Amino acid sequence: MPPAGSSPGTLAAPAEASPTVLSVTAYNARAVIEKAGVGIDDIAALRTDGNIVWVDCTGFRDMEPIRALGEMFALHRLALADVVNLQQRAKYEDYGEHAFLLLRMVDAENPTETEQLGLFLGPDFVLTFQERAGDNFRLVRNRLLDAQGQMRKRGGDSLAYALIDAAVDGYFPVLESIDDRLGELEGAILSAQQRTPAIADLHATRRCLLDLRRAAWPLREVASALVRGESPHFSGDVRPYLRDVHDHVVQLLDLLENYRELSSSLLDLHLSLVNHRLNEVMKVLTIIATIFIPLTFIVGVYGMNFECMPETKQWWGYPAVLLLMVTIAAVMLRWFRRRGWL
Amino acid sequence: MPPAGSSPGTLAAPAEASPTVLSVTAYNARAVIEKAGVGIDDIAALRTDGNIVWVDCTGFRDMEPIRALGEMFALHRLALADVVNLQQRAKYEDYGEHAFLLLRMVDAENPTETEQLGLFLGPDFVLTFQERAGDNFRLVRNRLLDAQGQMRKRGGDSLAYALIDAAVDGYFPVLESIDDRLGELEGAILSAQQRTPAIADLHATRRCLLDLRRAAWPLREVASALVRGESPHFSGDVRPYLRDVHDHVVQLLDLLENYRELSSSLLDLHLSLVNHRLNEVMKVLTIIATIFIPLTFIVGVYGMNFECMPETKQWWGYPAVLLLMVTIAAVMLRWFRRRGWL
Amino acid sequence: MPPAGSSPGTLAAPAEASPTVLSVTAYNARAVIEKAGVGIDDIAALRTDGNIVWVDCTGFRDMEPIRALGEMFALHRLALADVVNLQQRAKYEDYGEHAFLLLRMVDAENPTETEQLGLFLGPDFVLTFQERAGDNFRLVRNRLLDAQGQMRKRGGDSLAYALIDAAVDGYFPVLESIDDRLGELEGAILSAQQRTPAIADLHATRRCLLDLRRAAWPLREVASALVRGESPHFSGDVRPYLRDVHDHVVQLLDLLENYRELSSSLLDLHLSLVNHRLNEVMKVLTIIATIFIPLTFIVGVYGMNFECMPETKQWWGYPAVLLLMVTIAAVMLRWFRRRGWL
Amino acid sequence: MPPAGSSPGTLAAPAEASPTVLSVTAYNARAVIEKAGVGIDDIAALRTDGNIVWVDCTGFRDMEPIRALGEMFALHRLALADVVNLQQRAKYEDYGEHAFLLLRMVDAENPTETEQLGLFLGPDFVLTFQERAGDNFRLVRNRLLDAQGQMRKRGGDSLAYALIDAAVDGYFPVLESIDDRLGELEGAILSAQQRTPAIADLHATRRCLLDLRRAAWPLREVASALVRGESPHFSGDVRPYLRDVHDHVVQLLDLLENYRELSSSLLDLHLSLVNHRLNEVMKVLTIIATIFIPLTFIVGVYGMNFECMPETKQWWGYPAVLLLMVTIAAVMLRWFRRRGWL
Amino acid sequence: MPPAGSSPGTLAAPAEASPTVLSVTAYNARAVIEKAGVGIDDIAALRTDGNIVWVDCTGFRDMEPIRALGEMFALHRLALADVVNLQQRAKYEDYGEHAFLLLRMVDAENPTETEQLGLFLGPDFVLTFQERAGDNFRLVRNRLLDAQGQMRKRGGDSLAYALIDAAVDGYFPVLESIDDRLGELEGAILSAQQRTPAIADLHATRRCLLDLRRAAWPLREVASALVRGESPHFSGDVRPYLRDVHDHVVQLLDLLENYRELSSSLLDLHLSLVNHRLNEVMKVLTIIATIFIPLTFIVGVYGMNFECMPETKQWWGYPAVLLLMVTIAAVMLRWFRRRGWL
Repeated sequence: MPPAGSSPGTLAAPAEASPTVLSVTAYNARAVIEKAGVGIDDIAALRTDGNIVWVDCTGFRDMEPIRALGEMFALHRLALADVVNLQQRAKYEDYGEHAFLLLRMVDAENPTETEQLGLFLGPDFVLTFQERAGDNFRLVRNRLLDAQGQMRKRGGDSLAYALIDAAVDGYFPVLESIDDRLGELEGAILSAQQRTPAIADLHATRRCLLDLRRAAWPLREVASALVRGESPHFSGDVRPYLRDVHDHVVQLLDLLENYRELSSSLLDLHLSLVNHRLNEVMKVLTIIATIFIPLTFIVGVYGMNFECMPETKQWWGYPAVLLLMVTIAAVMLRWFRRRGWL
Repeated sequence: MPPAGSSPGTLAAPAEASPTVLSVTAYNARAVIEKAGVGIDDIAALRTDGNIVWVDCTGFRDMEPIRALGEMFALHRLALADVVNLQQRAKYEDYGEHAFLLLRMVDAENPTETEQLGLFLGPDFVLTFQERAGDNFRLVRNRLLDAQGQMRKRGGDSLAYALIDAAVDGYFPVLESIDDRLGELEGAILSAQQRTPAIADLHATRRCLLDLRRAAWPLREVASALVRGESPHFSGDVRPYLRDVHDHVVQLLDLLENYRELSSSLLDLHLSLVNHRLNEVMKVLTIIATIFIPLTFIVGVYGMNFECMPETKQWWGYPAVLLLMVTIAAVMLRWFRRRGWL
Repeated sequence: MPPAGSSPGTLAAPAEASPTVLSVTAYNARAVIEKAGVGIDDIAALRTDGNIVWVDCTGFRDMEPIRALGEMFALHRLALADVVNLQQRAKYEDYGEHAFLLLRMVDAENPTETEQLGLFLGPDFVLTFQERAGDNFRLVRNRLLDAQGQMRKRGGDSLAYALIDAAVDGYFPVLESIDDRLGELEGAILSAQQRTPAIADLHATRRCLLDLRRAAWPLREVASALVRGESPHFSGDVRPYLRDVHDHVVQLLDLLENYRELSSSLLDLHLSLVNHRLNEVMKVLTIIATIFIPLTFIVGVYGMNFECMPETKQWWGYPAVLLLMVTIAAVMLRWFRRRGWL
Repeated sequence: MPPAGSSPGTLAAPAEASPTVLSVTAYNARAVIEKAGVGIDDIAALRTDGNIVWVDCTGFRDMEPIRALGEMFALHRLALADVVNLQQRAKYEDYGEHAFLLLRMVDAENPTETEQLGLFLGPDFVLTFQERAGDNFRLVRNRLLDAQGQMRKRGGDSLAYALIDAAVDGYFPVLESIDDRLGELEGAILSAQQRTPAIADLHATRRCLLDLRRAAWPLREVASALVRGESPHFSGDVRPYLRDVHDHVVQLLDLLENYRELSSSLLDLHLSLVNHRLNEVMKVLTIIATIFIPLTFIVGVYGMNFECMPETKQWWGYPAVLLLMVTIAAVMLRWFRRRGWL
Repeated sequence: MPPAGSSPGTLAAPAEASPTVLSVTAYNARAVIEKAGVGIDDIAALRTDGNIVWVDCTGFRDMEPIRALGEMFALHRLALADVVNLQQRAKYEDYGEHAFLLLRMVDAENPTETEQLGLFLGPDFVLTFQERAGDNFRLVRNRLLDAQGQMRKRGGDSLAYALIDAAVDGYFPVLESIDDRLGELEGAILSAQQRTPAIADLHATRRCLLDLRRAAWPLREVASALVRGESPHFSGDVRPYLRDVHDHVVQLLDLLENYRELSSSLLDLHLSLVNHRLNEVMKVLTIIATIFIPLTFIVGVYGMNFECMPETKQWWGYPAVLLLMVTIAAVMLRWFRRRGWL
């Protein structure tokens, strides 16, 4: 984020960004051309009549090609600044000439992290800006390359929908893995040994859920805005499909909420079991100590070296003391049993 | 769920699905025909004028009959894909030609699980798609077979209402069993022994409540949409009955919320009691140890083998030490009593 | 509740219901007739021109008189089924011919439980269906019998208001008793001994609050619907009084919420104090054990029977060891004092 | 509160009410007359043309003067019943002839309690009913008595505003004292000794916050209703000032919420620190016990009186045992250090 | 805050305020004049046609210059009183002649505290009132001084936007430092030693989050009001930029909520780990004590000085007792292993 007070729309390359790479796919109902690692001029050449151009830009290290794209497609400067300003909230805005979507999607390379995706939809172009290189849109690209596929016959809004849908659906495998992890944690917590620090794992999972929720929560507003269909950039045919996206987002949030509550419940379970086991341990200690401490005292008494201890001189002294101690132990055990400790 | 990025409306058989079985019930005011294990052609043959056809499809292993049903009744492809895409959120959608409902109901065979139910209502047909074979709709079928019953005289919307009502009411017996379980848990927690791991049971119950809530929560929106009555597929006569369904859903959610809070309160109770008992145990240990450790030290002193210990040579040494120890024990006991430990 | 899938509007007597008893009060501005334990025919006889008839039905064991009442007053079958279907949510519905209210009120005989009240208001009748016999409406009946009272000069809506008001106000004494109980629990928790299982009492109180909240929460919607005044069955004169009922319901919910938070705070207090006391107990044990265990070890050393222990032969051996032990104890005590344990 | 079922608008003196005292202030742009401890007739005499009359009634022991005021100013009977019915929720109602406000304010004499204030605003009168005698409105009265002040030139709505403003602003000093108390508690909890029962103080503060919140929460609705300005009793000139009152109420609720969260955080801190210290105590005990218990066992072995114990006869026996014990202690200490306990 | 009941709009200098310093920047498309430490007359002189005047007032010790500014620019007295009344809630109000904004921003000198900022926007002036001197607006001032910059060509609303934007963006560096601190705390809690009182640090961070949230929460309403664009003081060109401010505020609140949950999760982690370690400690103690206490008792028995103890006279007595003790220890160890304690 540029420093507070700087001019709005300032393009600032984020720290530790990947190098900027452009690739372009131009298609119409009859043909598809796909080129990776292109320059600005290659894109301009493909932008002819009847073609729909999809430019995919990954990595935000170099601002120059991004600025050039902004000029070529007349993108709004605030929107372009949002694209490279990471940690932004998902949003959808209609700038008249083009629609702008910003959202976070799961990083295909590293599924515990999310990356930012900016998407511009104009009358004859779709631009995607991904924070990191990765293969999030391979299946969509394949559908475009498939000569039998319906997608290349439809407009850019259909491609934009397919990309948004892929971004949203990318969350579900991560949720499944979290579900598995919570299941394992439940097993580890319930099993008696608990040598492994299950609690640190649980914390890591909760933290991951927090991050996902922060990424996914504003998607709901974006999806609602798309479904409400106020944008002229999405045609009526795409509307039911956008409703499908909305349903998936809501399902996603439901699942996240569910896992959050489940992890809370697991934490409670963990705490209860630790307490329960502590109690068990203490009972064992208390029973052993409470029985033997008095007995040890008694044998100590007869270990004293006073010259004048009449009992020690009698033949019945030793068995009498033994008997006394057995009686004390028996009384104690009965008392413990009555208190439910045994 | 098909992989992220695949074409919308893809029919993908879920993992571990039961085999697909179709059964059909065709009825009008005068007659009812019921056939189980039928093929697509049998259904087509029964779809004559004046008949209302109810096709019940259980199990989603084979996509072929499902796709054929979709074609025969002109079902929307997104709706059909939702039907076999498990773990969907309950929803209600009106596709013009037919209304579509998706909801989760309690599995009649295994009441701790829920299964997905898809329902299509058209002018002369009702289609139900159940995730697993089971007897959820036996009573509704019987009412249809009953020659005296009112249902066969009414339209398909009345049948659809009856099926939705049965699906919703199927939750209540499960809630009653949870109520019983919570009552038992409360008894187990309050009773002093607590040998059984009540806390793991409590966690299982909370998990079950979480699952039920996730299944039941979106039902509210569905029921509201039905009551608002924007669909032409439900006639005005059925409206008050749909309001009844809505009331039941709200009651269901109230109960779920109630049990959730009750289980939280039980957990607090459990933790408090465990702490309380730990405290009791520690008090016993502390009292015993605090009294006897100093006494044992004293008898140890007179057990030392120094040649020059004048007290041990006197006749009053032994009784004096015994008296000293009784005094110490009495002082300690009084101090404990004053602190409220006894 | 009838089994899932049965026909809507089925009248099913709840399990363990009290016997059904009808009583009737017919009044106009000049006269009042009151009869208890009447049959259907007695009621029909009193239903003459100018009379307002209040039928009070308690206990739902016999469905016959209830069904007969339904026919006589042309009650909607779903409403009538709701009346005898216990554990329903409070609701208000206008069936054109008559208004229907369902709510839970405190059982006058057993104030820790709630019972269901169904109320029908028609142009010349008020019907009340109480789950259990009891004296909830004695004061209202007395105001009706009072020749000077205003109530008999007004219509049935005024009587219905008085009954609803009495049902709502019946909650307040229960809340006062809960307030007292929480005060006592606070005292018990803060007082040092805590012999009584205050925590189980606290849990019972929380459970009671949960039940009351579940019963009272939907009253808010009912009261709001009444205040909005969409029903033609309540005249404009009664409107300000209904607003008063609404205010009481909101106050009731405020109090319930307040007590709930107070009980949570008490639980926290209890846990903190138990922990605090455990800490105190452990400190005492640790101080005693930490001082005496090393000393006991030292006296044990000189209790060993080695023939060759030079110190034991010297005259200064015994006092030197005593001095050593006093020094150790003093050092330990000082260390404890510095840690703030003493 | 009168018993459930009694006639609406019944005036019932609350238990333990203070004696009823009336005082009156009549003013116009030129003159002010103030009288304390007056009767009904004095008030009637001052109610002449052009005068605005402010009657302040404190204490609700005697219903007679209150009933007389109700008649003289034609107050609505439900409003008048609300005034003396304590523990009511704050509300604002417009009865056509006059506006009615009910709210809770901090008791000037005893700032940890709140008292009820009823306020009626008519075309030429302002009536205030305070639950207890006290000096909440001294500053407002002074502004009225000040010949230079603007207030006496304005209407009764301006006086009503000033009174409401004073009632709301009276909460802030209490919040400041709570802020101070929480600060002290934080210090007490963080300081190591913790001799004083900080936790009971914290509970008392939380309880106080709960009471304040219950009193202040409904003020928001009242203030919103005033700002919306639907009442003809408040002129447009007073509107911006009412908005100021609304802002203060919202700020008040923000602060209350803040202190509530802060007190929760303090409780967590307390619990964590108690646990931390318990852990420390237990470590000390465990280290001491774990080192000395085995050593004490060894010296016990050589304290046995068997005639045939060869080691005890050797000259090297005693030093060898001493060496063995030093070794054991050293190994144990190293093990503790490796576990991070030292 | 002035005492409750004082006249509205009273200007009261807050306690411990910094001295009041005025500085002024007058600009138009061609020139900029900047003066620090000016008097009222200097400002009046710069207020000529075509100029936009920005007066920045820091510190509220002296009321005189503030009152004079209020008169010169005809500010509403309630707004002016709000400016110097600290701890106010953020708000936005349109007084016709000028718009008024009040918000809290991070103090540039001391980033853990917030300070109050009042901002007036009129047709040809912008006034800012900062609670404390500080450099929050240096970058904005520089953009104004930059002859190439766009800002001086635009109106006062553009300057006001830049100031609000700077105030909002000033929160983000503080959030980043909190993120870092939470990360360090997580490390400290997870690392085994935990010598440092991580829990007190965590509490301080939570308290800081609470303060920030209280400051930032009402910004949302302010930003929404600005975006809704009802004010004539902000031109349509500035609208998209205000939407950007709104997005930043929402992102800010998201982050605050996230950190709050993260800190709760850290607290849970801490408590769990402390409990876990306590359990470990207790197990060690219990194992040691449970093995050696019975053995110590046995050796005590044979340390008794009875004359008649037959075993002590036999040659096999000593080895038999040793063997017995080894057996007991072995049995105990096996039992512990079976319970999973070893």
